[in-house]
Amino acid sequence: MHHITVCFTPAQFPYYEHEGCNAVAIDILRATTSICTAFMNGAKEVIPISTVDELKIHTGTEYLIAAEREGIKLDFADIGNSPYYFTRDVVEGKTIAYSTTNGTHTINLAVQCHRAAIGAFINLSAVCRWLEAGERDVFLLCAGWKGRFNLEDSVFAGAMAQKLIDTGKFTTRCDSALAAMDLWSIAKPDLMGYIRKAAHYERLHKIGAADAIPYCLKLDLTDIVPVYCDGVLRCNSDD
Amino acid sequence: MHHITVCFTPAQFPYYEHEGCNAVAIDILRATTSICTAFMNGAKEVIPISTVDELKIHTGTEYLIAAEREGIKLDFADIGNSPYYFTRDVVEGKTIAYSTTNGTHTINLAVQCHRAAIGAFINLSAVCRWLEAGERDVFLLCAGWKGRFNLEDSVFAGAMAQKLIDTGKFTTRCDSALAAMDLWSIAKPDLMGYIRKAAHYERLHKIGAADAIPYCLKLDLTDIVPVYCDGVLRCNSDD
Repeated sequence: MHHITVCFTPAQFPYYEHEGCNAVAIDILRATTSICTAFMNGAKEVIPISTVDELKIHTGTEYLIAAEREGIKLDFADIGNSPYYFTRDVVEGKTIAYSTTNGTHTINLAVQCHRAAIGAFINLSAVCRWLEAGERDVFLLCAGWKGRFNLEDSVFAGAMAQKLIDTGKFTTRCDSALAAMDLWSIAKPDLMGYIRKAAHYERLHKIGAADAIPYCLKLDLTDIVPVYCDGVLRCNSDD
Repeated sequence: MHHITVCFTPAQFPYYEHEGCNAVAIDILRATTSICTAFMNGAKEVIPISTVDELKIHTGTEYLIAAEREGIKLDFADIGNSPYYFTRDVVEGKTIAYSTTNGTHTINLAVQCHRAAIGAFINLSAVCRWLEAGERDVFLLCAGWKGRFNLEDSVFAGAMAQKLIDTGKFTTRCDSALAAMDLWSIAKPDLMGYIRKAAHYERLHKIGAADAIPYCLKLDLTDIVPVYCDGVLRCNSDD
């Protein structure tokens, strides 16, 4: 039996054991959903970049720059962080230099684990299969919001933990995994209704970016699992 | 309407706004339950002390030393952290120098807010009345376990948030408060059964200290609200 740990925010990452785990980085609204969408539409690679200064180095290169802070596209970026920007005509064959408020920092922590993948509702079952095939303990790292807990990532972590436990190959004695599964049990019958009370729904609504939320909550649109290797996320086609 | 914020761990404290709030420090198993019990049994004052080195300064004085690490009494302490140690014959009229793995650090963060009180199931309604009378935003700070989320403190924060909202004088748009209330709604019908799955139940069980858990989950045994002022917790008899 392999163990599942859920970490609700990057701020708590140092307090959880993660060595030897396969990790999943989670930022449902919207980074990890957008990254999956980029690969669905033929992107070659995604480079997760934590800081704006690092990102600026890539301006004027052949890279596509996708970046936001506080939900809003940075002025020097080619596109922002809505999954709707990552269309085939924009991303196909491209390397994307990518930076967001919480998501890319989360990914760059998750890669400290054995291997790290990108998880979202749109590739939930595929990531679970990747974790099952990995035969290791699992570490689910939520992006939250600026060090704070958020509902959408936690509920997703609960959905994933429940699915893994249902295989009979995983177990947990992690309080946050248990709580996340309880939240998922409440949210599941009406996920959109549940997420409507989340603080980030309100934030995205205020900046006119709430239109992408229903898409971000759709289940299993793709079998693609973006996996990190040597500084770059690539589409995992082996699993 | 006053706003409720829930912070699941001291590790996240810097990421939440707490200025001007009335705070409640929460460490259900067992620190905040034991502190309430000490005052129920006539203790004069409790001095929350974060580190063992600071605590050692008080050995050989008239203070009663209550301290544990990892659930186990420190060898130089008079008593450990079980509420059962804080009997009237031991604590009446005494000043208690107090240090625990997570609880006292949590209290010493909470006091950075406007005012800070000690909350536990055994004084739940009394603390809610204190917060209502305070007419300020509320900050509920859970101790968790070494920077990690825990179930028992979060469920209690949910119980408290729900009770405050039910007065019609409080509201929340804090994701962790919303999650905590959902967890409370699941735990409420069988609180002991729910807490049995928590990691700290297992930890206390292993060291033979699980006997105090049912007591720690009892509702409203007292009207006492321990409140912090000038480095010391005292029984709040004005409210």
